[in-house]
Amino acid sequence: MAERVSGPEIERLIQLLARLPGFGPRSARRAALHLIRKREDLLGPLADAMRTAQDKIVTCATCGNIDTCDPCTVCADQRRDHTTLIVVETVADLWALERAGALRAAYHVLGGTLSPLDGVGPKDLNLSTLIDRVARDQIREVILAVNATVDGQTTAHYITDLLAPLKVKTTRLAHGVPVGGELDYLDEGTLAAAMRSRTAF
Amino acid sequence: MAERVSGPEIERLIQLLARLPGFGPRSARRAALHLIRKREDLLGPLADAMRTAQDKIVTCATCGNIDTCDPCTVCADQRRDHTTLIVVETVADLWALERAGALRAAYHVLGGTLSPLDGVGPKDLNLSTLIDRVARDQIREVILAVNATVDGQTTAHYITDLLAPLKVKTTRLAHGVPVGGELDYLDEGTLAAAMRSRTAF
Repeated sequence: MAERVSGPEIERLIQLLARLPGFGPRSARRAALHLIRKREDLLGPLADAMRTAQDKIVTCATCGNIDTCDPCTVCADQRRDHTTLIVVETVADLWALERAGALRAAYHVLGGTLSPLDGVGPKDLNLSTLIDRVARDQIREVILAVNATVDGQTTAHYITDLLAPLKVKTTRLAHGVPVGGELDYLDEGTLAAAMRSRTAF
Repeated sequence: MAERVSGPEIERLIQLLARLPGFGPRSARRAALHLIRKREDLLGPLADAMRTAQDKIVTCATCGNIDTCDPCTVCADQRRDHTTLIVVETVADLWALERAGALRAAYHVLGGTLSPLDGVGPKDLNLSTLIDRVARDQIREVILAVNATVDGQTTAHYITDLLAPLKVKTTRLAHGVPVGGELDYLDEGTLAAAMRSRTAF
């Protein structure tokens, strides 16, 4: 701003909001004004919710999920099939699979993918606990639900090699045409994979 | 979500974030995860900044601006020309004009526009203090920097009538081609106004 038009407290609020994903300086200003207009309804409750989250959030020692209790809600849920582990890269992926209601099983959050260029090695991922769980908990199937990217697939291969001595069944998500997708807009790799894995109609 | 995958505290944080302008459920989840990942750097400081804002923010009794002091930073700034009042609809408009560095004058924030259909009458706007200021403070010019919408222009005409007995000079922002704008994309009203108000090259 060319001139200061308000106190430093408002500037600081705008600067912090601008660091949220999807926000820039302009949308952060709009959000700040919206929050200030709705001081009682939104600003106060949001400040409290953030403070509570900061005080209470822990990483689940079992699976790496983020929650306000340890073991987390997923690990503590006895209605799930705890002999099947879905290995995901991030908590966001866990949430996405749960929104889809894909499978009521247990999870294991790696916290990223192997990426030698970025200096991320096996020690940086939540891998030793994965081996321990598979060895200890009579796991029957490990589903490698990592992203279909180069890093994701590299990580999946690495984990398959790690798990080989334990003789556990390992699977990966199917490749194919996204539901609602148009063939014309899909890449050749996806189309070839969908053709190879075609199923009876 | 099909299943609860985390405690109610995280759900509540996501629900509140989803009420920010420009955010929906999906971007709110992404923002919540980002905040949780950056607990020390961002979540805590943002919670503190929001709490401070809620405790300190007041509406300036003179001009209607939002600030952490009253009179506000703009009203208290002695380097401004306090004999010129820029009348704006909202604080966001005040901030926009200040970013442009348009004119170092004083402001008056109406808090909206006259809108009979929405039940907004003269009593709902910050109008009586405007008349008082013009009558009391030797104001030489009132610039009606309201939006170029029907409601904005109706409000501008209403204010002009109100101010008429006080014999103060009232002006409005120029209409014309936006800087960087292409004629082909502009509406007929703007082009006609720009043609009428053409200036020597």
